[in-house]
Amino acid sequence: MGSPQDSAQGGVAARLAAAGIEVPPPPAPVAAYVPAVRDGDRVWTAGQLPFVAGILPVTGKVGTGEGCVSADVAYGLARTCALNALGAALTVVDDLKRLVRVIKMVVYVASAPDFFGQAAVANGASELIAVAFTPGHHARSTVGVNALPLDASVEVELVLAVR
Amino acid sequence: MGSPQDSAQGGVAARLAAAGIEVPPPPAPVAAYVPAVRDGDRVWTAGQLPFVAGILPVTGKVGTGEGCVSADVAYGLARTCALNALGAALTVVDDLKRLVRVIKMVVYVASAPDFFGQAAVANGASELIAVAFTPGHHARSTVGVNALPLDASVEVELVLAVR
Amino acid sequence: MGSPQDSAQGGVAARLAAAGIEVPPPPAPVAAYVPAVRDGDRVWTAGQLPFVAGILPVTGKVGTGEGCVSADVAYGLARTCALNALGAALTVVDDLKRLVRVIKMVVYVASAPDFFGQAAVANGASELIAVAFTPGHHARSTVGVNALPLDASVEVELVLAVR
Repeated sequence: MGSPQDSAQGGVAARLAAAGIEVPPPPAPVAAYVPAVRDGDRVWTAGQLPFVAGILPVTGKVGTGEGCVSADVAYGLARTCALNALGAALTVVDDLKRLVRVIKMVVYVASAPDFFGQAAVANGASELIAVAFTPGHHARSTVGVNALPLDASVEVELVLAVR
Repeated sequence: MGSPQDSAQGGVAARLAAAGIEVPPPPAPVAAYVPAVRDGDRVWTAGQLPFVAGILPVTGKVGTGEGCVSADVAYGLARTCALNALGAALTVVDDLKRLVRVIKMVVYVASAPDFFGQAAVANGASELIAVAFTPGHHARSTVGVNALPLDASVEVELVLAVR
Repeated sequence: MGSPQDSAQGGVAARLAAAGIEVPPPPAPVAAYVPAVRDGDRVWTAGQLPFVAGILPVTGKVGTGEGCVSADVAYGLARTCALNALGAALTVVDDLKRLVRVIKMVVYVASAPDFFGQAAVANGASELIAVAFTPGHHARSTVGVNALPLDASVEVELVLAVR
């Protein structure tokens, strides 16, 4: 496992670029809250939905039944949420290289009541972070919920160490 | 957007008073946990239910169906939760003027499975904070859940910067 | 209420031993995330399921209906989750005596939609912490959710102060 310094040396941008991944522009500020807050050497992001260019390409609960979003599709949505969370962090730091590591991630998966594969879905977010950061490992809580805003399938929030 | 210093100059109390809003007395300590913990220059509140004078005036899941709590009513409940969270913070700081800003808010909305308007409900909490603080903007996660303690409709937790 | 120093003087280990409670070995590292992250003088644990020796002895939603896990059983599961969270913290500090206090706990209870006794379930986790720490009081959020990973009944995460 590399040292946190590795990530600080421009590593996040370089690693994402090497993987062909682009951090999306940060979301537009909203009325009553903001995409992220910097608190000393920590950044707390708002919960991020899997928006792509301002729309949710997929909505609905994750599960195995008819009409449900599959776990495989939801894995990709969780990855998008994590990427959007990095974009959110960029609203309060001026460069990706200031992001040192992800401390904590919470992944909420809108779930059919008989779906229990939330961890595999959440890996979409965790593995994106593992590509971007060294060390990429973070503490994570993953829970199923019965509904998310706008019928989104996944929501991800991060607490990051920055400098 | 004002500086954090604005809020520190007695601003929270003055702003709430100007808006005719009174912070409720902090909840009585409970057996195994407390309303808030101070950790250096941060206060973490327990999740707050929309108690008014010790009772929940409304209970039930938020949604559009028969027997559901409407989003409009739930907006007011979220506001009450946020106000109670400020009361909870007062159990560990001696004056509202020590509250500098809200860093993070999580809003849990007890939801009918086909209700996806959680963000509008959560604005009740965010807009109360925007009245009380300058800057009032905070990072927020909003999720639906299928049940909250005592059949409450909304629960709100805060992490605040204090001094 | 004792001072934080009490817990720092080897108190956590001594108190748990006096109560006949053993902290389980920390969980094996998983692919994309870790059981806990240390961030300065704070430890953030991953959400912990009520594993005992690598298996979930009980699964299912908590409630009063047929086939549901009872609140009494779930109380014990919440206690196990909290114990596992201490084990998780030991992956990033070298001794229990470095754990000063629990700042924040979040308890997710997989719930039947008409079950509202989540607080009594969560007391299983809070009371374990109250045995281990002086002061044992912490801020807590307790919510019901419709599904947890692996059909677990309870999940608990902690933020701890360490030194």
